[in-house]
Amino acid sequence: MVKKKTMKSNELNDLYDYGYKIYQNPDFFKFSIDAILLAEFVDIKMNQKKILDLCTGNAPIPLILDKKFNHSLDIVGVELQKEIFDLATLSIEYNNVEKVKVINMDVNDYIKSNKDKFDIVTCNPPYFKVSSSEILNDLDVKAKARHEITINLDEVIKAAQSSIKNKGYFYMVHRPERLADIINALKKYHFGIKRIVSVYNDKNSKCCLILIEAIYNGEDYIKFEQPIFLDQYRSFKNIF
Amino acid sequence: MVKKKTMKSNELNDLYDYGYKIYQNPDFFKFSIDAILLAEFVDIKMNQKKILDLCTGNAPIPLILDKKFNHSLDIVGVELQKEIFDLATLSIEYNNVEKVKVINMDVNDYIKSNKDKFDIVTCNPPYFKVSSSEILNDLDVKAKARHEITINLDEVIKAAQSSIKNKGYFYMVHRPERLADIINALKKYHFGIKRIVSVYNDKNSKCCLILIEAIYNGEDYIKFEQPIFLDQYRSFKNIF
Repeated sequence: MVKKKTMKSNELNDLYDYGYKIYQNPDFFKFSIDAILLAEFVDIKMNQKKILDLCTGNAPIPLILDKKFNHSLDIVGVELQKEIFDLATLSIEYNNVEKVKVINMDVNDYIKSNKDKFDIVTCNPPYFKVSSSEILNDLDVKAKARHEITINLDEVIKAAQSSIKNKGYFYMVHRPERLADIINALKKYHFGIKRIVSVYNDKNSKCCLILIEAIYNGEDYIKFEQPIFLDQYRSFKNIF
Repeated sequence: MVKKKTMKSNELNDLYDYGYKIYQNPDFFKFSIDAILLAEFVDIKMNQKKILDLCTGNAPIPLILDKKFNHSLDIVGVELQKEIFDLATLSIEYNNVEKVKVINMDVNDYIKSNKDKFDIVTCNPPYFKVSSSEILNDLDVKAKARHEITINLDEVIKAAQSSIKNKGYFYMVHRPERLADIINALKKYHFGIKRIVSVYNDKNSKCCLILIEAIYNGEDYIKFEQPIFLDQYRSFKNIF
């Protein structure tokens, strides 16, 4: 007999050391260093005001950007999963954040109805391909956040293209194993790749993450920035 | 009146600290750290004996591999430019190297006549695209070694494909700015990308080189190895 798990209850945690709180649920995917690094990697230039965060989860990236840029940005987050969307809504209310809006919608559907064009699109997408032999995380919500079940890499970048202004910037965090797929998809949707950062836990570990900056309808001119060794930082704020 | 330059004469230099000598000419492109790093990056597995080095120049990579692997490999280098090919021949004779052969031929022509299949193909190709506005190096030999005048990236990888065994390994050193082009070309010719190393002069500099390992008819599964900071090494021997 399979025992039905009891759902854990929501927790109100610190959003790293940004001074906001964030609702999380240990049964779902909790925000991680990946989201912090991506938010920190985003380079807001003059006149860039409108930000879209695809697969926003419990909205750590919108919340960090709102705080970091002193409520000067208009940020929209899109999240398919109702359970996680609800957490995002709770956090936005708790912190009295007025300039972040989350939409409970499949990204693939969102781009069909959306007419807005954004200066910047960010995404911390599901990282892992789904293979039939794979044993997925038994909690469906978590599996969807980690694996390409409801959206894949090509669809993420297609969604970025359809909602970004000409010469707008796209920022993504992903796994190094997928770099070739990422570059192929970015080329397919007419992004020029500008910056790549490789992230390592320490000087003895394999690369665990990559951060990518691309410009829509721009030329490739890839700069490999200095790598990040996570163990060398006491705080990840302003590391770029 | 344009003054005609006097050609400098050949020099016999140490091939780094490998214990071979190498003929060079200061008017041409001298071997550099790029060739050493690429030769060191090559991972010779059991039963891999036949190596092809495209755009071999004055043959630093074949000479290093011959020395490093104790004359156990059969290495062919292909170099178009007669002046540089002659230097390679002089070095091979000087060091009494029996298992390195250099061919004075355009790589694009070589692959039309060649029937050999190699376990490993290496290449330190011309790095820079040619644009009409560009002022090329005034010495033609040097310009051809640095710019895609006689061969471009697509042709290099096509040549690797046509001369490599199934599941053979391809190793290349290049500039980080070209990574998207490199990945696109590798995918076009059915290479799976296995390893990427980014190389920096020091902890404050931009990435100056990337090393790439790819497998013919293999799947992508990119590992970003630990980056190399050149200023941290007293010798580059066995750094991988």
